[in-house]
Amino acid sequence: MEKGTLLYEGKAKKVYQTNNDDIVWVEYKDSATAFNGEKKASIAGKGRLNNEITSLLFSKIQALGIDSHFIKKVSETEQLVKKVEIIPLETVVRNLSAGSFAKRLGVEEGTKLARPIVEFYYKDDALGDPLLTEDHIEILQLANIDEVAILKEKALQVNTVLSGLFKELGIRLVDFKLEFGKDENGNILLADEISPDTCRLWDDKTNEKLDKDVFRRDLGNLTDAYETILARLGGQSVCIK
Amino acid sequence: MEKGTLLYEGKAKKVYQTNNDDIVWVEYKDSATAFNGEKKASIAGKGRLNNEITSLLFSKIQALGIDSHFIKKVSETEQLVKKVEIIPLETVVRNLSAGSFAKRLGVEEGTKLARPIVEFYYKDDALGDPLLTEDHIEILQLANIDEVAILKEKALQVNTVLSGLFKELGIRLVDFKLEFGKDENGNILLADEISPDTCRLWDDKTNEKLDKDVFRRDLGNLTDAYETILARLGGQSVCIK
Repeated sequence: MEKGTLLYEGKAKKVYQTNNDDIVWVEYKDSATAFNGEKKASIAGKGRLNNEITSLLFSKIQALGIDSHFIKKVSETEQLVKKVEIIPLETVVRNLSAGSFAKRLGVEEGTKLARPIVEFYYKDDALGDPLLTEDHIEILQLANIDEVAILKEKALQVNTVLSGLFKELGIRLVDFKLEFGKDENGNILLADEISPDTCRLWDDKTNEKLDKDVFRRDLGNLTDAYETILARLGGQSVCIK
Repeated sequence: MEKGTLLYEGKAKKVYQTNNDDIVWVEYKDSATAFNGEKKASIAGKGRLNNEITSLLFSKIQALGIDSHFIKKVSETEQLVKKVEIIPLETVVRNLSAGSFAKRLGVEEGTKLARPIVEFYYKDDALGDPLLTEDHIEILQLANIDEVAILKEKALQVNTVLSGLFKELGIRLVDFKLEFGKDENGNILLADEISPDTCRLWDDKTNEKLDKDVFRRDLGNLTDAYETILARLGGQSVCIK
């Protein structure tokens, strides 16, 4: 497999062509961004940590029955994934109140929701990723009703599997963001990443934040938090200090 | 029927007890507010106009099969309505893109939507009336799933009737906000008001704004616009200049 030309550079990743039209080469960057790019920093080791954690999580949930675009890790900061056309929706699952949910709706952070809920946000930086209703998604032709139902079902399945997996590691999965894409046959496949950049992860006993809120809210050292997640997942920690 | 003690004063209305426990006395104020109260003014004649227009509209849609809390107009600025417990949701119906919908979702103002859509906002000034998904409504226990379905159905019925009514008057019903309440038996009843304060109304030929956007966006004289609506509805116009 050969790394080809750059197809796309996002805030946290670069995506390259390969010599196989159905496969792309993803490189995780050492950049941290928050608040729609308003806060940003370069953090040595973050690309490696997110690549390691995402690779481990996609492998673990695959073993538990959840397919994704993930093929394999090819270096500390790189992985191969199936090429998909990303659906421009951020699919968010929430188990506890936190972040924008807590602030927008006035529900104290940490409150357990009566059941997990799925939210959709329009993946559009210029608009600031606004919350969407299902009617909005249909009217804007971002996905049809059947596809929205599939996204919700898959997101809740991922939640069940991931929540169980983290619980065994003494971590509460507070909420997380998923992205889905369509392969060349129109099948909807879990894509993007699952990492402390895209999940809120709280230590079950201490409530310590082990996710990007450490960066968003200046709560300490981000790589320490991410190393903790990687270590509990059984990944190989590399001391970069 | 006697006007009793003040029960509640909102931004645009005062609500008084009557000597009948099931009926309240509503007085429309001469105040205009926008952007969650950030912009406000006292506008002579506005209370009368909204009371006249709401009374006419509730009577007209009643004749077309839509029940509401409205009983009768008792003065230029006052009306009697059935006492209901307001459900803390703003139910918005949109036919064309405008206002927050246009801005949030990047859809050019005036774009006709593929079908009318219903949105719900949390009636909470402190939170700035945030947009809600149906899951939010359920989780926050603002209404249950069956009630949300009733609200959507009733809102779309009102849209059909009101859109037809305004069309005959050369006016496009762009969008509007409804509030619903529950009577003592738990029946859901259309409540609050229907006026240029709560509807976007555009002249069909000139696109002239005949609603609160005149105030929000400083487009001219608000009472002139509201007088136009009242006159086209066949109401009695009073020149207050």
